Formats: sequence, C-alpha cells, structure tokens
Amino acid sequence: MQLEKLITDFKAYLDRIITLSQISSILSFDSETIAPDGSLQARAKRAGFLEVEMYNLQTSDTMNDFLDALKPHLPTLDKQMQATYRLAKKSYDEGTKIPKEKVQAYAELTEESTAVWAKARKENDFKAFVPYLKRVIAMKREFLDLRADEIPAGGQPYDVFLNDFEEGMTIKKYDDFFEKLKAVVVPLIKQVAASKKKIETDFLKAKVDVADQRKISDMVSDKIGYDINRGYIGEAAHPFCNNSGKTDVRITTRYREFDFMSSLYSILHECGHAIYEQNIGDDIAETALGGGTSSGIHESQSRFYENVIGRSLAYWEYIAGDLKALLPKEFANYTPQQFFEAANESKPSLIRVEADELTYGLHVIIRYEIEKMIFAGEVEVDDLPMLWNKKYQEYLGVTPPSDEDGVMQDIHWSLGLFGYFPTYALGSAYAAQLLYYMGKEMDVDALIRKGEFATITKWLEEKIHIHGSTYTPNELMEVSFGEQLDGNYYAKYLKDKFTALYQL
Amino acid sequence: MQLEKLITDFKAYLDRIITLSQISSILSFDSETIAPDGSLQARAKRAGFLEVEMYNLQTSDTMNDFLDALKPHLPTLDKQMQATYRLAKKSYDEGTKIPKEKVQAYAELTEESTAVWAKARKENDFKAFVPYLKRVIAMKREFLDLRADEIPAGGQPYDVFLNDFEEGMTIKKYDDFFEKLKAVVVPLIKQVAASKKKIETDFLKAKVDVADQRKISDMVSDKIGYDINRGYIGEAAHPFCNNSGKTDVRITTRYREFDFMSSLYSILHECGHAIYEQNIGDDIAETALGGGTSSGIHESQSRFYENVIGRSLAYWEYIAGDLKALLPKEFANYTPQQFFEAANESKPSLIRVEADELTYGLHVIIRYEIEKMIFAGEVEVDDLPMLWNKKYQEYLGVTPPSDEDGVMQDIHWSLGLFGYFPTYALGSAYAAQLLYYMGKEMDVDALIRKGEFATITKWLEEKIHIHGSTYTPNELMEVSFGEQLDGNYYAKYLKDKFTALYQL
Repeated sequence: MQLEKLITDFKAYLDRIITLSQISSILSFDSETIAPDGSLQARAKRAGFLEVEMYNLQTSDTMNDFLDALKPHLPTLDKQMQATYRLAKKSYDEGTKIPKEKVQAYAELTEESTAVWAKARKENDFKAFVPYLKRVIAMKREFLDLRADEIPAGGQPYDVFLNDFEEGMTIKKYDDFFEKLKAVVVPLIKQVAASKKKIETDFLKAKVDVADQRKISDMVSDKIGYDINRGYIGEAAHPFCNNSGKTDVRITTRYREFDFMSSLYSILHECGHAIYEQNIGDDIAETALGGGTSSGIHESQSRFYENVIGRSLAYWEYIAGDLKALLPKEFANYTPQQFFEAANESKPSLIRVEADELTYGLHVIIRYEIEKMIFAGEVEVDDLPMLWNKKYQEYLGVTPPSDEDGVMQDIHWSLGLFGYFPTYALGSAYAAQLLYYMGKEMDVDALIRKGEFATITKWLEEKIHIHGSTYTPNELMEVSFGEQLDGNYYAKYLKDKFTALYQL
Repeated sequence: MQLEKLITDFKAYLDRIITLSQISSILSFDSETIAPDGSLQARAKRAGFLEVEMYNLQTSDTMNDFLDALKPHLPTLDKQMQATYRLAKKSYDEGTKIPKEKVQAYAELTEESTAVWAKARKENDFKAFVPYLKRVIAMKREFLDLRADEIPAGGQPYDVFLNDFEEGMTIKKYDDFFEKLKAVVVPLIKQVAASKKKIETDFLKAKVDVADQRKISDMVSDKIGYDINRGYIGEAAHPFCNNSGKTDVRITTRYREFDFMSSLYSILHECGHAIYEQNIGDDIAETALGGGTSSGIHESQSRFYENVIGRSLAYWEYIAGDLKALLPKEFANYTPQQFFEAANESKPSLIRVEADELTYGLHVIIRYEIEKMIFAGEVEVDDLPMLWNKKYQEYLGVTPPSDEDGVMQDIHWSLGLFGYFPTYALGSAYAAQLLYYMGKEMDVDALIRKGEFATITKWLEEKIHIHGSTYTPNELMEVSFGEQLDGNYYAKYLKDKFTALYQL
C-alpha cells in the first residue's frame, strides 16, 4: 500500500534527525561536564556541524515532498502520525525562514558564549560576557525579523519566543498569570516576614564532604525512582537534565560543602525531568514524539518531585532516617519536622535555583520582565546588572553583592534561551494542578511517607509521561483532566502550605 | 586558479569526514567511561550511523571525482597533499570493497561485543563472550574475502590486517622480528630467574585509596607534560587514549587499591600516546594528516614515556620525593633505587599490560601466534582459553586461574582489532631505537633526573610528533634517522638494562 510505504520512508527519514539530535545531546553533555577547556573552538565547530546536518534534513526538499505527500492523508492518520506531521511541518516552516549559515553561526556562537559565561561567572567578570551576550541577542533579533509573521495580532516580537517554549503562551497571558500570582504571593511574603515563627536552619550549614554528598545524590535519586541503569549523575556549573532517548537520560548537579540541600534538591528537580523522559511510551520512544511536550509540562514534573514531594513533611519523615544514618555526627539530633521547616524557610534571596517555593515566582518574574525589555529595546546589555540589581531590590528587598550571584547566575541567556524562564513558573502552577487531581485518587502524603513513589510516578506516567509530545500542553491537560492551565491551584497550594508552616 | 580551488574543495570535503570522526571519537570515549549500561543498543545504533556517514563520504562518487581530478597533479603537489591523497585513495579503495550494510553491521556488532566482553570479563564468563567473538571473527573473515587482492605474494589473509596497523609489515617480517627477540629474551629470562639478586616489592602492595591514586595520576601526567587543558583523565575497564583533534586528547586508567603502580604506569603509557597527538604540527592539525602515523610509531611513544623514562632509575630519583610527600605513611622509608628495582622486577606473569619490559614481548608473541592460527583456521573460538593457557604455560611457565586474567584480559578482539597486538612489540623496538639517537644528542638520564621532560619531548616532537601522518612509518624513520626499524637496538636495550639490574 502506497501510504504505508510513504509513512515508513518518512519515519526512516525522521530517524536520521533523531539520531543526530541524540548524538548532539551526548556531545552537549560532554561539553558541559568533562570536555577540556582547550577544545572550546573544536567543540563549537562540531556542535555547529551537527546543527547544520539536522537543519538540512528538517528543511530539505525531501522533507517538503514528504509533507506535501502526507497532507491529503492527514484526516485518516492516527493521532501520533498527525502529531509527527505537525512537529515536522513546524520545524520545516521555522527552518526555512532562517538561512542555514545563520543556524550554524548561531550554534557555534552559543557554544562559545556558554563557555565564556561559565568562565566570566567564575571570575565575576560580567564585562567579559557582554560582547557575547550582545551577539547572542543580536542574532535572536535577526531571527525575530525573519519570523515576523509569527507575532500574534496585537503582540510583540518576544511573543514568538514565549510560544516557542510553551505553545499557546503570549505576553498577554503571562502578564495576567504573573499579576494573579503577585496578588497572592506579595501579601503572603509580608505575612511570613511578620510571623513570629522561628525556623532553625543553622544545621543545614554543616560541612558535608563532596564524597558524602555524592552518596546522598545516589540515594535520593535511586529511592525516588530514577533509573541509573538508563542514566548518569554528572557535575556541572548549572544542574540540568540531558537525554538521548529514554535509555540515556542524564542529570547533573553541583556540590557546595556547606549547603548539602542545594544539591539534594537539584537532584530531585532533575530527577523529575529525567523520570518524565525515562517513562515516555515505548511506542513513541526514539521517535519525533519521544520527548516531553513542552518546557512548562517538563518543569511541572521537576517541580513536582522537587517541591510537592521533596519539600513535604511526609518526605522528610521518610528520608530523614537514611540521612541521619549516613551522617550521624551532623544530623542525628534533628527531627523530620526540623528538616521540613528548614527546607521550606521562606525569605527573599539572590539565587533563583535556591529560592524557596514562595519567593521563587518573583525570581522568574524579574527575568521575564527583563527579557521583555531587552526585546522591546528598552534596556542595553551593559545596563543589565544595574537593572537586575534594581529589580531584586524592588521585589525582593535584596541586592546581589556580585554579578556572579546576580545577572550571571543562570546559563540560559548564554544559550540564547529567551522566553524559557517564564515556563518555570508554569511548571509550579501545573504541578499544583496535578497534585489536586492526584489527591482525588490517592493519599499522596501517605504514599510519600512510606516512600511509595512508584504509585505516584505510575499516575504521572499515565497522565503525562507516556504521551511524550503527542499532545500540545493545552491538549494534554484537556485529555487528562478536562481543563487547561489554571493558576488558582498554584496560588491556593502556596497559601495553604505557607500559612500552615508559618502558623499565620 | 583551478587546482587551488580543487584542493580547497577537497579539503572542505575531507573536513566533514574529520569532524564526523571526532564526533565518533567523543561518543566512543563516553561509551567506554560513563554511558549507562541500558543505552547499549542505542549507542551501537548511533556509532553505526556515524560509521556509515563517514563511509559514505569516503567512498562516494564525489570522492572518486576528487581523486581522479587530483591524480594528474600529484607530482606537483607538496608532500602533505600527496600524503592526503594517498590516505584518501586508500580509504576509497578499501571502502569500496566492502558494502556499506556490512560496515554498519560491523560497527554495531563491535559496539555491542565490547560491552558484552566488559561484562563477561567482570563475571569471568568466557562462554557469554563466545557467540560475539565468533560473529566478530566471521565478519573479519568476510572482509578478508573481499580484500583478497591485498594479500601479498606468498602471504596469508592475516597479512592484510598486519599491514592495516603497520604499513609494510607482514607475517614474514614479524616472524623474523619475534624470532630475533626470542633469541635474546629467552636466555635473559633464564639468567634473571637464576640470579641471586633479591628485589623487594611488598611495599608496592600498600593500600592506596582511589582518591590518592587520582592525585598521583594528576601529578605524574602533569609533570611529564600532558596538557590537561587539552585533555581529561577518565576511568575505564581498559586504559586507552582517545583523541578528537589535538585540542581534546583524553586518556583513561583503572585503579587497583593494592597496586598503585598499575595505574601509575598506565597513566605514563597513555600520556605517551596523548603527548604525540597533542604535539601534531599546527599546519596539519584537524586535517587528514592530523594523527599519529601508525600503531607501531604510536606505541613507540607510549613505551618511551612508560618504560624508557618511567622505569628508569633517573625517573624514580626525580619522582620518589613527590610520591613520599603525598603518601609518607606508605612510602617514606623507601629509596629511589628501591622503587626503581621494584618497578622493574622481572618475572613471568599473567597480564600483558602489567608485564615487565623483559617478559612483555612474550605476551605479544602469544597473541600474535593465536591470531595467526585463528585466521589460518587452526583453532576454534571455544578452544581459545585452552590454547591461551597452554601457550602461557609453555612460554612463561604460568597458567591463568581464570579467563578474566587470561584470554579475556584485553579489549582488542571484542573490537575486532586483529593484527594490532604485534605493533606493541614494534613500539618497544622503535622506542629503543629512538633512545639510541636521542642519547647521541643529550644526556637523557640527566634530563629525566631533573624532570626536564620538555627537552626530551621537544626532540620527539621534531623527529616524530609534528609530522602526524605525513609519512609512513618506514618513511618517517628514514627522514628522521636515515634508517628503518632495526630490532637490534631493542635487544641491546633489554640486555643492558636487565643485566645491570640483576647483576648478571
């Protein structure tokens, strides 16, 4: 049958792209963990080469022929083939708007700028990063000029990036979402600040050797259900999850000797991303649909494991004993309640990835607002540290003592990932919504307390993981819960948790 | 000018192959060090994909057109372009003899068989490895059938593999070479066995934590001149050197808690390979000529750093102080002379990579003879452990207690690297020849004693390293020393060293 052969050929063609993207992914992991500094240029060249190879396949005449041939059959195809077509068409349309020399130049630039960022951050030298960040932004602007047709009616160029990372999201929707969040969080933060509740946190500063922290990483990742037989825990400047198909889903963390919880929660966070990827349905694994559907949904999984599970009292009732067995000298005298409270102490701080759940959203809002200004031409790169520090003072009442802990703390901009940060807030919002529906079917706290994460993961697997990229975020929420994103679950979750914790 | 454009285009075309081979190299390093077990099949698929991509470029009509167009200009090209042409032509001829499905199948098979070997070795289960080794050998035989025209007059199929790893070498030449070596080594070993000289080695069995051994690796590799800014020291089942251009030359080792010298000498050995690659001339780096010219010459460098330098009294006079400073409890009471003697104790043993210099050649001869038998159809795979153990008993007077320390100790056969082992003996022979000529220009021992390895490396760089693959092994020796390989230097080196050490 002709259609059958067409589909088989199309899948074989896509398989080449997927294989290249997996190769690219392993090179990227290598580059951010163990590759030698001296190979920077060579790595940039190789990354660029692979980008171009993928780009060529995604935008070729052959691809166009496949899409044209498949189009009349669309209504008769199954939902997976329809989604496959949709994603391939999207890549083709986007790819053909941008000349391939620019794609390669961009890949090389971001590889280099990321390495420069890492070094500049270490040396607290924002000026060294400035020319690279300017070049990254200039290229992003060039891309926006070429994608002007994607700007929604009444929207702005930055809308295009927002839609890239979460299909369907716009400045308008985010502005609404963040305003609603502010309406709950800002008064809550004030109440917390005025609360008489004292939380002891000094014991978190106990020295824990990196060797012991590695053991903690192995333990918590194993218990939470991260399959190390299809994974690896590396070390990098910024924690991330990196996958090359569901059989190779790696995570990284960074260790700080006097702050073991920093790595512990990074691990739980990245495990959330990784478990999502490891549980993609076998029928779509290693295909174009074999990855998480969006940044927001992805982040909902990492936030679920990090916060909903990891920062619950139930989790500490479960894990404190193991931690105390590993490090009795440091922790034998502390109760699960004390770990729980310390892990949730809320106060304005400098570093996003270490912010508590309550203030976290404000870190995201700051980045979102700055990105909006960058692409509206309302701020220059040289002025970013000033603007950054001003907003931190204004929203959180703190000013970074150095750019290392300020404007340079995140890897994202060096990679050109503008429009990505806002999805981190979506993640928490989705996670709270999932918890609501999960709670209707099971006693989530009781499961956590017993360490029965497999039951929780199974539920998430069925509702979210197995579908991969078959559905858009909105479709996925509709299919699994009959409703789309609703920020009220998140607001209520924060209000309940912190009202109880601080006895407000 | 037409020729200029032709050469530019040809170089750009070759650059694609080189980039792919570097990518493949990084994936291979990843696969042998940190990649998760569960991704075995996916890794095999990706490795096969890259092999096919390279193969397609090496054997394409475009390549054929380039070669045809360049041919008439050959006499007017510089030596580097001539060498580039020669290597590309060789790849084309070899590649077009073997259908690409077989190339991909072979790449996938060896990726898988290597993983199976690693597991089987760990579990001392040769039977688990048998079906894979049989398949590897069967495919190598298929390849030989297709390359029958390369068998030299009066030679055998195995000659083809010998020539693959060291251009110009044949069974006839190796038989001669090994017979001459035996003539010196066999009586020497007997004299050593009869010697009254007592060498103390118990202190080498002191427990040295892996963390401390990693410090030793860092120290000795740094002092010997391995540029870690363009390198990385990983851990793997079998030590190796892996490069992706001269800016990324990685090595691995393995640590044994009660045998720190095992890793120390692996490190020096791999540093020799790595320094060769790191010192390739800038004018040919990242081109088809930008790698060592042959296994034999490569191994001459690793053996030079491991044995000529590392196992000299002068080296221990230089390094013992640092080692004692790092591990005073274990080693403070021992003199450089004691380390030197212990590092050179000669007695028949089981493991090739840990054999002393004197008996090492016999380990190579055993493998060479077995490989000859395999490809002459004189032994079955199932019988290899028996044959292996018989030869070890016959030549070295020892029998492996398990296949883990016997027939399964080396990675090579799982990778299909038949014809490679003999080059290890060539390496030592070349190294002794190089030492002779180096000694005419400088006091090598005095330089080692002072840790002035840069002077030694500079000499090797000029004679060997910078040339990359511009010359064949024979040409290189002629260009740099006016003569080809001569095994008598090696025989004399062994005789002098062990006669003195054992006071014969």
